[in-house]
Amino acid sequence: MNESDSMNDIALVVGGGPGISASCARLFADEGMRVAIAARNPDKPVLEKLEHTHRIRRYACDASDPAAVAALFENVTADLGTPRLVVHNIDGRVAGIFRKGITEAEPGMVLETLKNSAFSAFLVAQQAAAAMLTNAPGRNGGKGTIIFTNASAAIKGYAKSGAFAMASHAKLGLAESMARELMPEGIHIAHVPIDAAIGWTQEDGTRAHRMAGTSVDDNMADPDHIAQLYLQLHRQHRSTWAFEVVLRPWVEKW
Amino acid sequence: MNESDSMNDIALVVGGGPGISASCARLFADEGMRVAIAARNPDKPVLEKLEHTHRIRRYACDASDPAAVAALFENVTADLGTPRLVVHNIDGRVAGIFRKGITEAEPGMVLETLKNSAFSAFLVAQQAAAAMLTNAPGRNGGKGTIIFTNASAAIKGYAKSGAFAMASHAKLGLAESMARELMPEGIHIAHVPIDAAIGWTQEDGTRAHRMAGTSVDDNMADPDHIAQLYLQLHRQHRSTWAFEVVLRPWVEKW
Amino acid sequence: MNESDSMNDIALVVGGGPGISASCARLFADEGMRVAIAARNPDKPVLEKLEHTHRIRRYACDASDPAAVAALFENVTADLGTPRLVVHNIDGRVAGIFRKGITEAEPGMVLETLKNSAFSAFLVAQQAAAAMLTNAPGRNGGKGTIIFTNASAAIKGYAKSGAFAMASHAKLGLAESMARELMPEGIHIAHVPIDAAIGWTQEDGTRAHRMAGTSVDDNMADPDHIAQLYLQLHRQHRSTWAFEVVLRPWVEKW
Amino acid sequence: MNESDSMNDIALVVGGGPGISASCARLFADEGMRVAIAARNPDKPVLEKLEHTHRIRRYACDASDPAAVAALFENVTADLGTPRLVVHNIDGRVAGIFRKGITEAEPGMVLETLKNSAFSAFLVAQQAAAAMLTNAPGRNGGKGTIIFTNASAAIKGYAKSGAFAMASHAKLGLAESMARELMPEGIHIAHVPIDAAIGWTQEDGTRAHRMAGTSVDDNMADPDHIAQLYLQLHRQHRSTWAFEVVLRPWVEKW
Repeated sequence: MNESDSMNDIALVVGGGPGISASCARLFADEGMRVAIAARNPDKPVLEKLEHTHRIRRYACDASDPAAVAALFENVTADLGTPRLVVHNIDGRVAGIFRKGITEAEPGMVLETLKNSAFSAFLVAQQAAAAMLTNAPGRNGGKGTIIFTNASAAIKGYAKSGAFAMASHAKLGLAESMARELMPEGIHIAHVPIDAAIGWTQEDGTRAHRMAGTSVDDNMADPDHIAQLYLQLHRQHRSTWAFEVVLRPWVEKW
Repeated sequence: MNESDSMNDIALVVGGGPGISASCARLFADEGMRVAIAARNPDKPVLEKLEHTHRIRRYACDASDPAAVAALFENVTADLGTPRLVVHNIDGRVAGIFRKGITEAEPGMVLETLKNSAFSAFLVAQQAAAAMLTNAPGRNGGKGTIIFTNASAAIKGYAKSGAFAMASHAKLGLAESMARELMPEGIHIAHVPIDAAIGWTQEDGTRAHRMAGTSVDDNMADPDHIAQLYLQLHRQHRSTWAFEVVLRPWVEKW
Repeated sequence: MNESDSMNDIALVVGGGPGISASCARLFADEGMRVAIAARNPDKPVLEKLEHTHRIRRYACDASDPAAVAALFENVTADLGTPRLVVHNIDGRVAGIFRKGITEAEPGMVLETLKNSAFSAFLVAQQAAAAMLTNAPGRNGGKGTIIFTNASAAIKGYAKSGAFAMASHAKLGLAESMARELMPEGIHIAHVPIDAAIGWTQEDGTRAHRMAGTSVDDNMADPDHIAQLYLQLHRQHRSTWAFEVVLRPWVEKW
Repeated sequence: MNESDSMNDIALVVGGGPGISASCARLFADEGMRVAIAARNPDKPVLEKLEHTHRIRRYACDASDPAAVAALFENVTADLGTPRLVVHNIDGRVAGIFRKGITEAEPGMVLETLKNSAFSAFLVAQQAAAAMLTNAPGRNGGKGTIIFTNASAAIKGYAKSGAFAMASHAKLGLAESMARELMPEGIHIAHVPIDAAIGWTQEDGTRAHRMAGTSVDDNMADPDHIAQLYLQLHRQHRSTWAFEVVLRPWVEKW
């Protein structure tokens, strides 16, 4: 009913993991969009497979490098057309700061986390906005959708997680500022903190999780359902746009 | 894909206006649910018409009266079955306190507003929870969905709106407490502040609004799109439940 | 330096417990203010003692009764003068709903809690505002201060606490609306959620707490320190007013 | 009553402007503390004067440089002792991004803003925490106080202010994470967004403001009153610590 014209819908997912990014790419392609995915290493098996099963275009991009992000948007636009749906799906946390207390976190890693997460979100969103402002309004009245995947650290600064709290809060600040600036221009900005670990289904039917040894159960968000929310946000009519949706599993404490 | 089994879906909308309530009733019925609607005056033309066009069952109920709310749930369950989707859609603001400064608001009207809005939300949600806890999990893993329509006054206390801020905040407090208590029991609690005036489409194709003389334009939320969000919330998988979604038109200042 | 003219400062504390109310009364009197305290039962020993040690005036008042609150302000103004500092310090939770799940809470008690807490806050603040608007600006530039003591339930709706979440959220909504309306009129509105149990020092030097059997340790807020914050808020210059201060002990989890 | 032992109180203010930093330095010295102030250029007349009038020690420091911040704390500790009160008072906004739309902001300036504001806050707070953890508890029960001055952009992302929203939100995220980690260790973390322009009193009695041509009136926060809040926060008893205080002038819209 209030779907965008999927035939002309170009989606770009920045971040190339086997969880939300892969689920988004599959769902968007299944819904008729032409889909690009950008990753530091686009030759990962999970992405190669998406090319074969869903005709996803793969792009190499260090999203914390201004020139690389500009080139990405040029290439995607030349290959597929101007994106109408852009998802920034990069966690960006440098492994070395994970669960480090404030006095233990190495400054270089903290800055790296800020660059990978918040600064890359800025670079991607800046290019996405510039591109979308040239679009004509679609069936839902809007010119495009920019979605920021985020963590619950965006809305709550947890102990022993200072650098990640900084980066996640920064991403929220950017999203909120862009929402106020760009929604009246017809661009839907959405911020989606996932208050959960992500557990995805593997080829053999079992579910996997990035943290080895973690059991995957009902307390893990299923990325296929997250992708579905992103699609709903993209198709939401501009008469009733949601800026923020926090997703958490039914059993999550908050 | 992850839809509930609509054939057995019973929906109850409490509040009987021509905006969100009517849009919900129509959409839920179109999706195959059996739908009940409760209002102080169920004989309003808009509701009579819904009975003819969408086989909506109408019930008389003063939702601020404990006995009346208990009777409503008994009757709906007897007539249609245990509800799986309950929407509390009552604004409750007594006309006499509208835009009244703190020293001008008449205490009796303030208490009336609290009763109509927050207390009725408690009564409806209490009965809904008790009923849903007896349900078996549906396709999305959940036993049912309770949605509270609210105003932006739930998250921002505006000047000259003290009584309404109290009632709207109270409704949020109730919803949040219930979410923490009942989501782990399989009941999806959702709180939806609409940061906009509502403008609905009339039979002649023009759009109407409760405040006479207000122009209905892009700055008014379309209740058909709000109903669609409610349906998405109801079908959302319990792996990724959203508690709160603030909806606002693209041009709204916030 | 930026203190109000304490000689002419009239303080009214509504709520007469041995914790925050008694601490406020003592500190305000020690700072030279003339102090009134209102309670359902003003003949409690703790209040009688305050009359003798600090010349506190005691008033009987059911703060959920509009006429009683109006009479209270008339009497205090006649006896002492127009209040410049009013503290609403009523918890209002009916014992019967404590830790009751949503389906167990008795509706009558829920409404009672709303009346005792949120509605009484409205009544007191309405009278306080009307009185203070007639004051001349003091040394800090303001005409008076209204402080709402609240619980952490004002900012987080806990499970099995629906009625208290409603009442506490409502009080926040009222305070925020009044802040936006009255600060530009020169009245400082402050909202102070105490995210802690309160433990006060008894005559024998040991500390007490309302919940019998609870140990009083570092995890309990000391009401003397809370009173000190209230005094600082009252004396804060209108160039830099704080609306909300959440107080919690150093070891509290949040 | 609950004052720290000022004789042994060492305060370090990072950021050397004529507004909050100068007001803090003066007040802390007047209260008997030994005070250090760090700035990129410590030879500004306003700081030179503070040395003469209040025996403030001046230090050169680029607070976005890890080595420089480590050296600063070494030097202050050697010269004065371990700090018990550290204020991070750096705005950090690069002039070139002021009121720039998302598509106009130059990426290099955005990263610079993140470094100057959020990353420097991390560096200063990390060193402050490490130093304070070695302190014995003072009269208020705590080992020290770290205060982050911030802007309202920390809690609301304004349009055409994406980079500043990122940096300000990041600082909040850091502060909140540190509060949860360090308050139970006895270090008071406070976050103070100033929702106002700052207007300070000049030698000739007129008030000044950083934005030339802006009139300084009641809508500007007086930094002397901000400094007073910082002192109150530092002396607050650990039984009742406030994490966040938003300050705004009485006439401010929010």
